[in-house]
Amino acid sequence: MFDKITEVNLLYDFYAQLLTEKQQEVIRLYHCENLSLSEIGDEFSISRQGVYDALKNAEKSLFEYEAKLGLLKKFAYTSSLIERVDKQIDSLISENAEDKDLADKLYGLKEIVDEIGDKEYM
Amino acid sequence: MFDKITEVNLLYDFYAQLLTEKQQEVIRLYHCENLSLSEIGDEFSISRQGVYDALKNAEKSLFEYEAKLGLLKKFAYTSSLIERVDKQIDSLISENAEDKDLADKLYGLKEIVDEIGDKEYM
Repeated sequence: MFDKITEVNLLYDFYAQLLTEKQQEVIRLYHCENLSLSEIGDEFSISRQGVYDALKNAEKSLFEYEAKLGLLKKFAYTSSLIERVDKQIDSLISENAEDKDLADKLYGLKEIVDEIGDKEYM
Repeated sequence: MFDKITEVNLLYDFYAQLLTEKQQEVIRLYHCENLSLSEIGDEFSISRQGVYDALKNAEKSLFEYEAKLGLLKKFAYTSSLIERVDKQIDSLISENAEDKDLADKLYGLKEIVDEIGDKEYM
């Protein structure tokens, strides 16, 4: 569904709060700020191998949380439903463009639907 | 927003998988099957006080997970948005009842929106 790096980033968005501060920091520096293992090691005064182990443990935790709660899977599914709703509303708007009142109401509907999508991710 | 018992039940729906098996069992027996502390104590061969402590610890974990991930809060918010969308679609359907094609499409839209709501809770 996603490549590994994207998946870790998405899982981090959902589950960062369940990780320890150190785990959060290692994932953030490696996956979000693209620092190398050696650079992160320098920052924490630990070996490259130590950073690697900490990173793998943190990633493992993220995947374990996903296996238990499935928030990313649910997000992907909900997003696909919202996309379908959006497209159908767009079609209705263009089919009824001459009815300004109806088109306005459909635009209003679309705004709320998109808010559901936003909230899903936050 | 919810009374305490309802809130624990809802939190349990969201976070049960993050509790230990014993914590899950104590919450389930007390909150879902309405057994007394003594009855649960008999089941586990521990004291009433031991059950009480285990129950309070499990409930505390649920509230801590909610403080970190906010799934119940998000669910309540998303549900309110879905309810608004549902009501607006209902209005559009009754305002456009004579246009069968449009009404059918609006019903279709409503079905997908309701599916978003179902998925939220699962």
